[in-house]
Amino acid sequence: MSSHSYRLIISCPDRVGLVAAVSSFLAKEGGLLTEANYYRDPESNWFFMRQVMEANSLPYGPDELKSRFQPLADKFQMQWQLTDTSVPKRVVLMASKQSHCLSDLLYRWRSDEMKFDIPCVISNHNDLESYVSWHNIDYHHTPVDPEKKVEHFNTVEKLIDDSNADVIVLARYMQILPPNLCAKYPGKIINIHHSFLPAFVGAKPYHQASERGVKLIGATCHYVTDELDAGPIIEQDVVRISHHDSIPDLVRKGKDVEKNVLARGLRYHLEDRVLLHGNKTIVFE
Amino acid sequence: MSSHSYRLIISCPDRVGLVAAVSSFLAKEGGLLTEANYYRDPESNWFFMRQVMEANSLPYGPDELKSRFQPLADKFQMQWQLTDTSVPKRVVLMASKQSHCLSDLLYRWRSDEMKFDIPCVISNHNDLESYVSWHNIDYHHTPVDPEKKVEHFNTVEKLIDDSNADVIVLARYMQILPPNLCAKYPGKIINIHHSFLPAFVGAKPYHQASERGVKLIGATCHYVTDELDAGPIIEQDVVRISHHDSIPDLVRKGKDVEKNVLARGLRYHLEDRVLLHGNKTIVFE
Amino acid sequence: MSSHSYRLIISCPDRVGLVAAVSSFLAKEGGLLTEANYYRDPESNWFFMRQVMEANSLPYGPDELKSRFQPLADKFQMQWQLTDTSVPKRVVLMASKQSHCLSDLLYRWRSDEMKFDIPCVISNHNDLESYVSWHNIDYHHTPVDPEKKVEHFNTVEKLIDDSNADVIVLARYMQILPPNLCAKYPGKIINIHHSFLPAFVGAKPYHQASERGVKLIGATCHYVTDELDAGPIIEQDVVRISHHDSIPDLVRKGKDVEKNVLARGLRYHLEDRVLLHGNKTIVFE
Amino acid sequence: MSSHSYRLIISCPDRVGLVAAVSSFLAKEGGLLTEANYYRDPESNWFFMRQVMEANSLPYGPDELKSRFQPLADKFQMQWQLTDTSVPKRVVLMASKQSHCLSDLLYRWRSDEMKFDIPCVISNHNDLESYVSWHNIDYHHTPVDPEKKVEHFNTVEKLIDDSNADVIVLARYMQILPPNLCAKYPGKIINIHHSFLPAFVGAKPYHQASERGVKLIGATCHYVTDELDAGPIIEQDVVRISHHDSIPDLVRKGKDVEKNVLARGLRYHLEDRVLLHGNKTIVFE
Repeated sequence: MSSHSYRLIISCPDRVGLVAAVSSFLAKEGGLLTEANYYRDPESNWFFMRQVMEANSLPYGPDELKSRFQPLADKFQMQWQLTDTSVPKRVVLMASKQSHCLSDLLYRWRSDEMKFDIPCVISNHNDLESYVSWHNIDYHHTPVDPEKKVEHFNTVEKLIDDSNADVIVLARYMQILPPNLCAKYPGKIINIHHSFLPAFVGAKPYHQASERGVKLIGATCHYVTDELDAGPIIEQDVVRISHHDSIPDLVRKGKDVEKNVLARGLRYHLEDRVLLHGNKTIVFE
Repeated sequence: MSSHSYRLIISCPDRVGLVAAVSSFLAKEGGLLTEANYYRDPESNWFFMRQVMEANSLPYGPDELKSRFQPLADKFQMQWQLTDTSVPKRVVLMASKQSHCLSDLLYRWRSDEMKFDIPCVISNHNDLESYVSWHNIDYHHTPVDPEKKVEHFNTVEKLIDDSNADVIVLARYMQILPPNLCAKYPGKIINIHHSFLPAFVGAKPYHQASERGVKLIGATCHYVTDELDAGPIIEQDVVRISHHDSIPDLVRKGKDVEKNVLARGLRYHLEDRVLLHGNKTIVFE
Repeated sequence: MSSHSYRLIISCPDRVGLVAAVSSFLAKEGGLLTEANYYRDPESNWFFMRQVMEANSLPYGPDELKSRFQPLADKFQMQWQLTDTSVPKRVVLMASKQSHCLSDLLYRWRSDEMKFDIPCVISNHNDLESYVSWHNIDYHHTPVDPEKKVEHFNTVEKLIDDSNADVIVLARYMQILPPNLCAKYPGKIINIHHSFLPAFVGAKPYHQASERGVKLIGATCHYVTDELDAGPIIEQDVVRISHHDSIPDLVRKGKDVEKNVLARGLRYHLEDRVLLHGNKTIVFE
Repeated sequence: MSSHSYRLIISCPDRVGLVAAVSSFLAKEGGLLTEANYYRDPESNWFFMRQVMEANSLPYGPDELKSRFQPLADKFQMQWQLTDTSVPKRVVLMASKQSHCLSDLLYRWRSDEMKFDIPCVISNHNDLESYVSWHNIDYHHTPVDPEKKVEHFNTVEKLIDDSNADVIVLARYMQILPPNLCAKYPGKIINIHHSFLPAFVGAKPYHQASERGVKLIGATCHYVTDELDAGPIIEQDVVRISHHDSIPDLVRKGKDVEKNVLARGLRYHLEDRVLLHGNKTIVFE
């Protein structure tokens, strides 16, 4: 679980001998596998692997492993990465006024339930500043002037870049990122969205759900692309509702499902369990 | 549960004294309540009641009860009905080639798990004829000629009317009912629809869901109106899926959730637990 | 939702005319019902009611309402109470070292998602003191000396009494309350218990669950009685697990279900939705 | 999905190079992998594999593949089997009076949703004979004389052996198999059990659940061992209940969860997704 490991993540065209080549390479180097996931997409004939090995089983470090693996990766035209679990990912959290997702992630962080670093929190409001500061985390309050959105997002971009972020989590950030930011961090920005997209597009989705008499409401955690709320889905869940639930009840139940879905989605991402394939994801739970 | 009862279903504008008036009336007549549900819609200020009383606690029959209740109903401008559990509802089942919903409902019927009569099954194919006939239920095979849809639905309408149906269940019937039929049986035609409406409108929803990489698929049971698949929702549910699920897997898992949701929705309807209010339902589970 | 209301909670032997008598009384006084739940237990022939009325619809206060209602309550041998939503319940939280339940309840409290007062937190460890204190809530650190359990629980009892508590929540308190404390606050102490009681009694339940290869783990929220973990159940839920889940994974997933179940159970209690009947509960969700 | 495949199922002590050896062997023979699952149990250091390859990708049949693989299996001390998806497993169904599980499995069989052969149904009652016979399946009615249990189970054993069964499903068979039968077919007899084992042992579990006021009831599908209802768990699920549910409601909801859990468990077994490891299972869903 928390032992020092390397994770080798691979996607490439499928060929007979692919698993054999990778596993023979790892065996020859002495790598002790502790977890392995494989998936072949029958539509595209594409192959996906996630292999976790104990760092101590190898006589050298991750850079040497990477350079030894490179020829095999070239041969099979792999998209690949090797991650080192001793290096926590750096997660910038962006929030607005609502605290449910941010509070939940901060709890999981401070209780060591999830391992990651938080270089800073960015918010267009200062409501959550005191709470974040108690955790000794930098809080950047960058208000949004509707006339100066470009300047605002330039500031956001600079904060992200200065923080050397691996992941940006929109924890109910409530602002639409401009296309250039979405394009700059592909597969690195994670959003949580209420309701069933695209079931109730537009404003006040909970009111729409109530008027339609739906029996389930849900949340979707997805990567941000420049098409609004249509990026690859990482995780989803629902909660049952009834006519007894008022709009505030729906909002409250929605918050619970949102924060749980976001926490699961972020965990999968931090553990390198999410592989992108076009507009869909392979999630090795 | 299976004892002889009357169910009094009421919806009307809310007023102080409404519950008192109804319950005082029932108490004066000697009615022993075994189940009671009340709901006030705060938006519309409308009140909904469902009260179940033991038939034996009253010294007369349902017709006398109705005529004694009428003045109260008039005073409070009630929409109301009284149903007698000793008279099973007559349910016409309509199917096509797929058997999962039909088989499930026939099982629940023949094992007495749900109490209703089946005057006939109507289908545009004969695939399920032998199976239905084993149950000693009439099977009407009415093929659809695309050039003669009007004639087809005239036949269907006549079969429904001849069977004196209280409810028509579209158990994966796969044909769109014409507006005149929808309008003729308001709140009496129950449909089951795969996927999340209106999430994936159009053809091949499971393919769309697979391409989008959704993590949940579901089914919606609703009353049919002339707006396609947009009628009042009775019941919904979902099942979790992953990238491992092929299209046939999605179809199979979808069938399971469809038949379970339809059976629950039909049960609520048969037990007079579903009250209509505009385009939403009050379901007294 | 947050409007000023009175809640009238009643349980008594069933009789024809009971609902009529209560609702006629309320109508005569002018009470506008906004929510009403009724249940008749067929085994014991006992009747349960929860009625919510707008405070402004009555021309006097709760004390006058109580004294006017008393004769009716006497006539029908009711156990009853009237609560005033403008008076938040006082909830003493007891915790140990684990923070998941406490953090969750503090979030719901500080975000006004649940309305209650917290006179103090009592803990046998000081791990959570700084976090609680940030909320400006008193934290009483009362270490447990195994040789002096009686003295410890005398201190706890005094703290509870001094805080004028309506509810005591054992938010993973990890100490068994002595029988005299259990007996002193019947129906007022709420506990959360991991796993499926009594499925894996004894120590290390997650290890036992893992060895047995169970596919679901859960949590139970219940009232404390002097029979360990066997009091009336308020709420339960489960989460799916698999062989991939290590013991730490089980513990983590167990924490999520524990805190969600406890929050739901406490909400039901605070909203007077839980009626006790012997060793079971009627929960008007 | 339904293409012709071989499934290679392996469990053995873990060693560096194990996956490499197996996948290199398969690659050398030309086997095209379409599905692969691996799991290493960290407690016992045991390794589990399930690999599915297209039959057409190999130039010879399954017997040749087995004999070529044997040396590798010996070297790594493997417990292993190779199954051929063109040979459906033979499933003997045993039932009593209740039809919910049997009807459900027969539906999935006749609609080709699950691929298996049914050599016969064995029952100690004749209630389901007509229904089974409509499917052209042999029905053996073997009543149980409490004085002659040994003879009864001798008959059952002979029927099982004559039918050349691969799997025996106790679809609510309601009789306890004698230890000699349990021992004769290890990992081949699948049972479905109501409620949460061992939560409510003894008679009338639904009554016990109702008296205790539980909020969830469930079902467990497991392999039969000579310790009653304590064999390795294949699948479990629950359904939510409330005080509104009468005992018949609990029984009905229990039936739904039982049949769904049994169907899922049997599917996993038929697709060789369940690997036994002591008293627990590895289920490659």
